[in-house]
Amino acid sequence: MKLFTSVHDVANVPAIVKEALELKANPFAHQELGKNKTIGLIFLNPSLRTRLSTQKAALNLGMNAIVMNIDKEGWALETRDGVVMNGTTVEHIREAAGVMGEYCDILGIRSFPSLKDKEEDYTEDIFNKFIKYSGIPVISLESATRHPLQSFADLITIEEHKKTAKPKVVLTWAPHVKALPQAVPNSFAEWMCKAQEEGMIDFVITHPEGYELAENFTPGAKITYNQDEALSGADFIYVKNWSSYEDYGKVLTEGEGWMMTQEKLKITNKAKVMHCLPVRRDLELGSDILDSEDSLVIKEAANRVWAAQAVIKGILEEL
Amino acid sequence: MKLFTSVHDVANVPAIVKEALELKANPFAHQELGKNKTIGLIFLNPSLRTRLSTQKAALNLGMNAIVMNIDKEGWALETRDGVVMNGTTVEHIREAAGVMGEYCDILGIRSFPSLKDKEEDYTEDIFNKFIKYSGIPVISLESATRHPLQSFADLITIEEHKKTAKPKVVLTWAPHVKALPQAVPNSFAEWMCKAQEEGMIDFVITHPEGYELAENFTPGAKITYNQDEALSGADFIYVKNWSSYEDYGKVLTEGEGWMMTQEKLKITNKAKVMHCLPVRRDLELGSDILDSEDSLVIKEAANRVWAAQAVIKGILEEL
Amino acid sequence: MKLFTSVHDVANVPAIVKEALELKANPFAHQELGKNKTIGLIFLNPSLRTRLSTQKAALNLGMNAIVMNIDKEGWALETRDGVVMNGTTVEHIREAAGVMGEYCDILGIRSFPSLKDKEEDYTEDIFNKFIKYSGIPVISLESATRHPLQSFADLITIEEHKKTAKPKVVLTWAPHVKALPQAVPNSFAEWMCKAQEEGMIDFVITHPEGYELAENFTPGAKITYNQDEALSGADFIYVKNWSSYEDYGKVLTEGEGWMMTQEKLKITNKAKVMHCLPVRRDLELGSDILDSEDSLVIKEAANRVWAAQAVIKGILEEL
Repeated sequence: MKLFTSVHDVANVPAIVKEALELKANPFAHQELGKNKTIGLIFLNPSLRTRLSTQKAALNLGMNAIVMNIDKEGWALETRDGVVMNGTTVEHIREAAGVMGEYCDILGIRSFPSLKDKEEDYTEDIFNKFIKYSGIPVISLESATRHPLQSFADLITIEEHKKTAKPKVVLTWAPHVKALPQAVPNSFAEWMCKAQEEGMIDFVITHPEGYELAENFTPGAKITYNQDEALSGADFIYVKNWSSYEDYGKVLTEGEGWMMTQEKLKITNKAKVMHCLPVRRDLELGSDILDSEDSLVIKEAANRVWAAQAVIKGILEEL
Repeated sequence: MKLFTSVHDVANVPAIVKEALELKANPFAHQELGKNKTIGLIFLNPSLRTRLSTQKAALNLGMNAIVMNIDKEGWALETRDGVVMNGTTVEHIREAAGVMGEYCDILGIRSFPSLKDKEEDYTEDIFNKFIKYSGIPVISLESATRHPLQSFADLITIEEHKKTAKPKVVLTWAPHVKALPQAVPNSFAEWMCKAQEEGMIDFVITHPEGYELAENFTPGAKITYNQDEALSGADFIYVKNWSSYEDYGKVLTEGEGWMMTQEKLKITNKAKVMHCLPVRRDLELGSDILDSEDSLVIKEAANRVWAAQAVIKGILEEL
Repeated sequence: MKLFTSVHDVANVPAIVKEALELKANPFAHQELGKNKTIGLIFLNPSLRTRLSTQKAALNLGMNAIVMNIDKEGWALETRDGVVMNGTTVEHIREAAGVMGEYCDILGIRSFPSLKDKEEDYTEDIFNKFIKYSGIPVISLESATRHPLQSFADLITIEEHKKTAKPKVVLTWAPHVKALPQAVPNSFAEWMCKAQEEGMIDFVITHPEGYELAENFTPGAKITYNQDEALSGADFIYVKNWSSYEDYGKVLTEGEGWMMTQEKLKITNKAKVMHCLPVRRDLELGSDILDSEDSLVIKEAANRVWAAQAVIKGILEEL
């Protein structure tokens, strides 16, 4: 692997899920691979799971991990070309990424969208510039439009907990008080559509009108505004809020009735409930579910290590 | 050891002091013990000595250390149950701790008190939730009511510098401009009372009226408002400010006359002077003492490494 | 080496440049040297290149690296003696440095000048106190008046790219919107003057009137206000803004005409262009140069690793 920014960078999805589970069974088997190799983990935004699990994965592989919160420990980056830098940005991404590429063997980057300019966010301008100017393999630690390490961990978790050969997986929108990016649902949809293509699952998306995801993330998904219809017979329920893609970055409804509860689970096939975390308890998802055996949220988070480790291993093997 | 939040988690105080001194003599003897083990050091508040010394201790034992300033690099945690999370807290401690427990073998947590709600602070609500929801051994890097790694290092330092079999140790209140927690004096008192029980020292506490510590931290201690009486014949003087426990979190007096000076030391038995640091020079403790041979403050800080290393080693041995 | 704060701490400049290039060719040859040794990297100010490259250098040598942003993760330090600490500073540098000296084998410190008090900045008060009170070898990660790891990396880069035995090196002032320290130009001048003494280069400084550097940094340098005269026949152009030393910390001119451009390079000897980074594009230095083959800025940054590694190795060998 030369790059990991979406499911499209993975040659064989079932194979990499298998690889991750093998790493989980034997975490320290490949420490020679990372010896004297350095991963730089660069955060333009806050992080808990990604920060800890990616460090852990790199250390498991024998690498050195250098973490930098560039906004707090460094300074503001200029990302536009052709501007005279006489304002508040101190360094251009061309130089910052170029320099990081000299110090590291692999870069992980987290950079959230503005949610103000759809074109800018969806062209993944910042990410593509890090890739271009660093000149080394880049791993997405969540970009403007995708969070592929999360979705990969989600698929590993489904694979571990499925009770039928081809479980029904439902992505359901949930209420929130803030306008959130589409990165997690986009990425989850993209991975699940791929898994559906591979015959691993059946995939349904449900949300209120106006919350349609961009079409290129949902090829082959069944999409419905009727949450009950979607939940009926479901094996896995993935709960997540996002803001509107069409009316970009807007919150269109308070979403009354869309919060996931034990009551709603009754029409599922004893579904397991998933969420990428952090979760707003009793706003997105009821505490009654989170504190029950039905919840997989901690297990998904735990699998972030093995997703990251499989990706880093794949990149190290081609360095 | 399964947990380290107070002296009560230590089975044998003289034995662990001896262990720490052996580690000081031979810091790298147990590196196999920590191989491929990860300690997560989670700071909800600032730290200098604890941050550096605990990392050093873990590295000496061959562990990986992952540091996170959750307030700055992550987000605000909700600690109450039964609330709809539609405010400013982004993640519940149930999930945050649960996830950390998946990535780490041991967790160190620093979390200061609010000094507003005595019940909340003294039930150690946040700490107990980290312990409960992480499911792994937790080390206190200073909690609302205790700073046990500091007190352990203090006892090591007394053991190293004592000139008599049973030295007189005095904890004396000192002035400050801010309202400070009772964590350090509580914890120091608790360790010294235990050491007194073991026949290692005699222990006296002196402070102005209204600054009584909670009784459960001072069993067997002699307590007096007369500083001169306390200092008389003392071998070790531990200087520290704290706010009132009774009139919770309040500063009751400017404490004129309570600052420790060379002049006051004259009535001691050539006492060595201790402080946990950071110290406000010439407010809590005179520069004339800090810059003299009588001061043990740097030596106490240095012993933080061996206190932490003895604790981590004890936990690693039972993982 | 016992200390690295300026070129004066280097016994033999050509020899250490050679050593750095040997380390570049063979980065992991000395990992036993740093085993169980700890470098503490203490930042009082932001950093990107220095932060990452010095960690990398230490890891290459087998050391443990502990990074602390003392202003953000700790608290404000008092540096003056003889003050009652009843204000906003929480800990005195005497204690903070003393404690760090107990935990680390080598300390790296970054501390920028105030640009308000020339005497205070130029006596390097903070730096000298860290050296005095830590009691261990200290490496400058940029001080009030010097940035020696940068200048050392610059000299390595010149050595690698020179086409004649004794190239002409020009330091040229550039415009900026902010008042910047003299640390980088002071230090570059100091290293280049030493290199000139050693017969390695010819050195010229050019700047507008009023921007004279302190004389002790420029022994033997040719200094001119005529940029064209300086650039004529130059092999290396080092572009950098600084504020006035004479009228301390002031910006005296917008510097119209002083920005380096491709047009200006025509009178040089096909000069390579250097800058310490971060650079304000199209204010200090034209994008046309930065994006061309003439720019060495990324290569200088890359050489920061080998400069740091040569220095740390020199110190480790004398521990």
